[in-house]
Amino acid sequence: MYEAKPEHHFTFGLWTVGNIGRDPFGNPTRQPLSAPYIVHKLAKLGAYGVNLHDNDLIPIDATSGERDQILRDFKKALSETGMKVPMATTNLFGDPAFKDGAFTNANARIRGYAIQKAMNAMDLGAELGAKTYVFWGGREGAEVDAGSNTLNALEYMREAMNFLAEYSEDQKYGYKFALEPKPNEPRGDIYFPVVGAALAFIYTLDKPDLFGLNPEVAHETMAGLNFVHAVAQAIDAKKLFHIDLNDQKMGRFDQDLRFGAENIKQAFLLVKLLEDTGYTGMKHFDAHALRTEDEAGVWDFAKGCMRTYLILAEKVKQFHADSEIKALLEHYHFKDPIVSGLTAKFSRDNAANLKAHTFDRAALGARGPGLERLDQLTMEVLLGTR
Amino acid sequence: MYEAKPEHHFTFGLWTVGNIGRDPFGNPTRQPLSAPYIVHKLAKLGAYGVNLHDNDLIPIDATSGERDQILRDFKKALSETGMKVPMATTNLFGDPAFKDGAFTNANARIRGYAIQKAMNAMDLGAELGAKTYVFWGGREGAEVDAGSNTLNALEYMREAMNFLAEYSEDQKYGYKFALEPKPNEPRGDIYFPVVGAALAFIYTLDKPDLFGLNPEVAHETMAGLNFVHAVAQAIDAKKLFHIDLNDQKMGRFDQDLRFGAENIKQAFLLVKLLEDTGYTGMKHFDAHALRTEDEAGVWDFAKGCMRTYLILAEKVKQFHADSEIKALLEHYHFKDPIVSGLTAKFSRDNAANLKAHTFDRAALGARGPGLERLDQLTMEVLLGTR
Amino acid sequence: MYEAKPEHHFTFGLWTVGNIGRDPFGNPTRQPLSAPYIVHKLAKLGAYGVNLHDNDLIPIDATSGERDQILRDFKKALSETGMKVPMATTNLFGDPAFKDGAFTNANARIRGYAIQKAMNAMDLGAELGAKTYVFWGGREGAEVDAGSNTLNALEYMREAMNFLAEYSEDQKYGYKFALEPKPNEPRGDIYFPVVGAALAFIYTLDKPDLFGLNPEVAHETMAGLNFVHAVAQAIDAKKLFHIDLNDQKMGRFDQDLRFGAENIKQAFLLVKLLEDTGYTGMKHFDAHALRTEDEAGVWDFAKGCMRTYLILAEKVKQFHADSEIKALLEHYHFKDPIVSGLTAKFSRDNAANLKAHTFDRAALGARGPGLERLDQLTMEVLLGTR
Amino acid sequence: MYEAKPEHHFTFGLWTVGNIGRDPFGNPTRQPLSAPYIVHKLAKLGAYGVNLHDNDLIPIDATSGERDQILRDFKKALSETGMKVPMATTNLFGDPAFKDGAFTNANARIRGYAIQKAMNAMDLGAELGAKTYVFWGGREGAEVDAGSNTLNALEYMREAMNFLAEYSEDQKYGYKFALEPKPNEPRGDIYFPVVGAALAFIYTLDKPDLFGLNPEVAHETMAGLNFVHAVAQAIDAKKLFHIDLNDQKMGRFDQDLRFGAENIKQAFLLVKLLEDTGYTGMKHFDAHALRTEDEAGVWDFAKGCMRTYLILAEKVKQFHADSEIKALLEHYHFKDPIVSGLTAKFSRDNAANLKAHTFDRAALGARGPGLERLDQLTMEVLLGTR
Repeated sequence: MYEAKPEHHFTFGLWTVGNIGRDPFGNPTRQPLSAPYIVHKLAKLGAYGVNLHDNDLIPIDATSGERDQILRDFKKALSETGMKVPMATTNLFGDPAFKDGAFTNANARIRGYAIQKAMNAMDLGAELGAKTYVFWGGREGAEVDAGSNTLNALEYMREAMNFLAEYSEDQKYGYKFALEPKPNEPRGDIYFPVVGAALAFIYTLDKPDLFGLNPEVAHETMAGLNFVHAVAQAIDAKKLFHIDLNDQKMGRFDQDLRFGAENIKQAFLLVKLLEDTGYTGMKHFDAHALRTEDEAGVWDFAKGCMRTYLILAEKVKQFHADSEIKALLEHYHFKDPIVSGLTAKFSRDNAANLKAHTFDRAALGARGPGLERLDQLTMEVLLGTR
Repeated sequence: MYEAKPEHHFTFGLWTVGNIGRDPFGNPTRQPLSAPYIVHKLAKLGAYGVNLHDNDLIPIDATSGERDQILRDFKKALSETGMKVPMATTNLFGDPAFKDGAFTNANARIRGYAIQKAMNAMDLGAELGAKTYVFWGGREGAEVDAGSNTLNALEYMREAMNFLAEYSEDQKYGYKFALEPKPNEPRGDIYFPVVGAALAFIYTLDKPDLFGLNPEVAHETMAGLNFVHAVAQAIDAKKLFHIDLNDQKMGRFDQDLRFGAENIKQAFLLVKLLEDTGYTGMKHFDAHALRTEDEAGVWDFAKGCMRTYLILAEKVKQFHADSEIKALLEHYHFKDPIVSGLTAKFSRDNAANLKAHTFDRAALGARGPGLERLDQLTMEVLLGTR
Repeated sequence: MYEAKPEHHFTFGLWTVGNIGRDPFGNPTRQPLSAPYIVHKLAKLGAYGVNLHDNDLIPIDATSGERDQILRDFKKALSETGMKVPMATTNLFGDPAFKDGAFTNANARIRGYAIQKAMNAMDLGAELGAKTYVFWGGREGAEVDAGSNTLNALEYMREAMNFLAEYSEDQKYGYKFALEPKPNEPRGDIYFPVVGAALAFIYTLDKPDLFGLNPEVAHETMAGLNFVHAVAQAIDAKKLFHIDLNDQKMGRFDQDLRFGAENIKQAFLLVKLLEDTGYTGMKHFDAHALRTEDEAGVWDFAKGCMRTYLILAEKVKQFHADSEIKALLEHYHFKDPIVSGLTAKFSRDNAANLKAHTFDRAALGARGPGLERLDQLTMEVLLGTR
Repeated sequence: MYEAKPEHHFTFGLWTVGNIGRDPFGNPTRQPLSAPYIVHKLAKLGAYGVNLHDNDLIPIDATSGERDQILRDFKKALSETGMKVPMATTNLFGDPAFKDGAFTNANARIRGYAIQKAMNAMDLGAELGAKTYVFWGGREGAEVDAGSNTLNALEYMREAMNFLAEYSEDQKYGYKFALEPKPNEPRGDIYFPVVGAALAFIYTLDKPDLFGLNPEVAHETMAGLNFVHAVAQAIDAKKLFHIDLNDQKMGRFDQDLRFGAENIKQAFLLVKLLEDTGYTGMKHFDAHALRTEDEAGVWDFAKGCMRTYLILAEKVKQFHADSEIKALLEHYHFKDPIVSGLTAKFSRDNAANLKAHTFDRAALGARGPGLERLDQLTMEVLLGTR
């Protein structure tokens, strides 16, 4: 029970379990792990696949001979284990060239280099079978808005997205693109800071159907926003292409904690939303073990992420099966077919009849929705005392 | 100099200068001011107009006789002063009936009542000449997501927006609708919490052209997001229909401070964005005097809002005229027509040539953009030492 | 099981279960409940006592006849139920006189009135048997620091605390005073914003032994601080005189949610700290039912607070009894008696020997503390899957 | 004008102007600068001195020969320029050995190593003439409170502080110790997160007189607290031993921006507090140039920090000389000698007379303090329009 299997579609990034524990104030605490080693370890833990940035696998300055050898070894590990590479992405943040942005840089040459690098990385991803291509614009932001690049940046980003979408189609890569928003860090302010902003931007692109979202728990939480609401809006717009699961305290640096480690209740509500709406995509744990941990801690971390998801999925079933909860939900979702009939769609008649309808304002205000009780029962489902 | 005139399009809400200083922990500190009195006072200070919720002017339980008398008095004040009512909106948050939402309430009857109330308020606004209709969904949110209303809420909101847009067209009111996002307070989490979320939602409506944004400094700042970036995205999407100017510290309750009172630099960058892009709409000060103040403080507050805007607008001109700043901006926006030619639009040739192009990665990373200097000069323009 | 009893020392304020659901944007959603009614209801739910501000019980403008009658009725309810009034406090925030502060007001007359009101409220509390007297300085803060009152405010606060402590001793009231910090709201910034600030201030008073802390989950959490750490510091300093339990999301308005409603893990760690250190004081639920609820929701809320505490206390026992957790804790708290002998206390010899000691820096850095595993097991204790 | 001179007591850390621009997502963007080079550059810009962690100057694995050579070169630069080293500190955060804490580590051996390293670093600082010794406990915190180290950590920290204070006295180093609080990053939660917490802790030490504070703008601001209030409390307690000037947006990662770059108004109020209270200590700019910048940007940054301070100090004089501001301040600080006589000190008579005093509550509530006007005038002093 609660054991991960490939059918659960759990994935990790090479950069997540491979994180070496360097932070702004300290040196690495763990040794690098080779990509094939990671593949084998994750396969044993029941993961479905592994995702990567171009430079997670191929160093930015690798010769083509080195590249070939690395790829051979990696593919061998994939084939030995049955692990997939469902998603790929480009590192457009690590190199000093991107220090002030990649696609949105005020320097035309850097924008060109970023698109070049992304094309190459898309080639790599396609070779590995990836069908989802993520754009996380870690450096696409600013500290100095007096630079007057804000409106340009939006235009530059659009150019890049339009260009790369056509490149993908021209190459018949079949990619779906998933934008991953983040409010800040490493930049003072990142463009498209939250799910809504990225979603809105998609509608201004040439081929909006190719683009969707890769929301991340920690990123939306950094801005103190309700992640479940954000994912719901993506689902409502049919734009949930991928999801990054982890955890985070509000209003602080990007923590990338083990899924569920901080906010169990929100994790439950998120799993509930995904399960209730039949999400079948990848559940990617974009997190890493605490910097305090050694390699054993890394695998404890990875197991914990998946196990917590499965425990919560079980609790979702229990929630739905609970008759007292069911009754509370029915009470809460009060129906009135006559009124609903009038509001469902505008017509001159509906408007007139609705205007003429008498509502008992005081009664509407007095009715209790039963939410304290519902919330407490939910908590007890979580705590296992129900 | 720095004196407000109607041509500046400064507006206030009846509820802003009329705020009586009640807060969650204390009773009112100021007497209510009548609407005609407010109109006359604001006219003297150089405002262009005054905005209102239905119940700012007409109490929710007024008889039709009372309503008519109030309207007569108010119109008289408008006509005596030349003041306009450019924007109107509905109070869908004050009455207990809306305690768990209005358009998005889980109770069908309350959703119906909310649409009815909005139609009536649109009638009132139209009668007063308003052309912009704002929706601020103060109660459209949740504390208990276990209520499982999140996806429904998006659907309900869409129904209401579609209905009211058709109502407006049917009545030939000519309204443009402006959505006003806010992340939280009074609800634990409000749906469409930030500019991006509201903007994205518009694209799912039946008549997206009728809908745009009414962003507010304080609301976006509560979530710690960069307001200038948010407004820029609205402008980029041609959706800046109205704007609410005030100020706020990040990560706390809705403060609605005097424009510029907290973050002078951001206020400057915002004025710069509005002036640089030729925004001609209303600049609405959705703020109120500190609760500590008496009526004299209220008018000091109102004058301060407008005066600060005009001072900053003057500094925008100075910024653009500064030759050292101009040179820094030119250095920053580095051009490369060859590369730009390749990235502007995808073609198989452009992609191939871009892939073949050699970029000097180290040189790109080494170049300094001069942003510390630019930022310091900006600050000195602000401080008046330049 | 999980049923509250007086011996658990659970208390509520008249203002908590009596909260009428008014907020900055909306009118009350619930009717006021009389104090005797509250006493009887809470007694039935198993509470130990009820706390109050002077004006929760006696309106600020009551005649002495009204006061006497109210007091008689209230005492009758206490005596019928065996309920206690362990804590009392003064409302120094509701009246407009205190709009810019009470004890710290820049106006000498208001400072005087505040002390007068506090003496009277202390008389009332003493008459009801209260032994803990709380100071929550809701209005002791500022929005405009240019007023140059910041240093004065600290001096004024000290004067007031010193005065009232002597008054208590002179009257032989036997009060212990508990300061309750809060970072903001209703003021832009409140003085003594967090536990540490209030604790530090105590050491500057004439009679520091009489003063301690009343920390509140929601208040410390508003500033994004770790509440468990704050309470630990109060315990370390022997200054945990009282505690306010509730819940809150970080970085937003004061939510006063049901205990455990937001952050189950922190609630558990807090209960663990209180139980592990043998805290025997009052556990006061300074929270209120959601504004959406009717009266039934209020009592669901009250029951939920206590029940959740008792469930978590049970889980603390389970945590301590878990042998795998025990082993992980032993591994984590690595002992080295020789080194500990050197560092426990300075002596010239200890310093010399410590300087001469060879530490294997690489080995110290390589060792894994096992925290990911420990944290996951803790979570599973919480989720009931262990 | 606005030119820095040694008498202004401006200092920088080797690690600040020497920052190479590495962050969690990217590699260094700048070359390291040698310590002597930094000393010469800062001297030319008018700084008073330069501060250091042990390993800023001497690599953690330097041989004693290397150490001696480095020291000789550094001292030569100091003597050529007249620059001082007024403050020193220990790097107890960079090495993996400290990944889970130094003085507060659950591992006794690491606690021992940390004290050893601090003694050696104190020897180095003393040799360079430092008189202030700073403790910033960057790693003294936790992500997993289930480790049950919270109370121990406070005890361990006390042991270390007591030990090192005695070591300093024994060695006749004459150090004053300054604790530097920070709420989080690199740890999830750092112990002694804010000024108040560190200040309170000092009173529990064996030799509290040797200990004070080194508050930092960015650190207190990360928690959304009012830094001016925090510094005022430190001054009130006579514990402002050193100060770190920089800037920061609330609720996000540690930005260490150029002084005044984010919040001009708070920077002004801080300079006002320091100047008004005659602070003569070091004004240390614990900040760094944006990662986007090259070396020229670094020196622009350093100049900007000092120049902004001097501009603001000039504006403080202007604020005090402004007669309208003076009048507003007098109105605000309302005096009543009779009431003040009663509240200044408790006596039975004073209490009785104060209780008997009649206050006109309504009048007290109605009076306007004039704060909107005062705040607007302050802003205009800042903007140079006054």
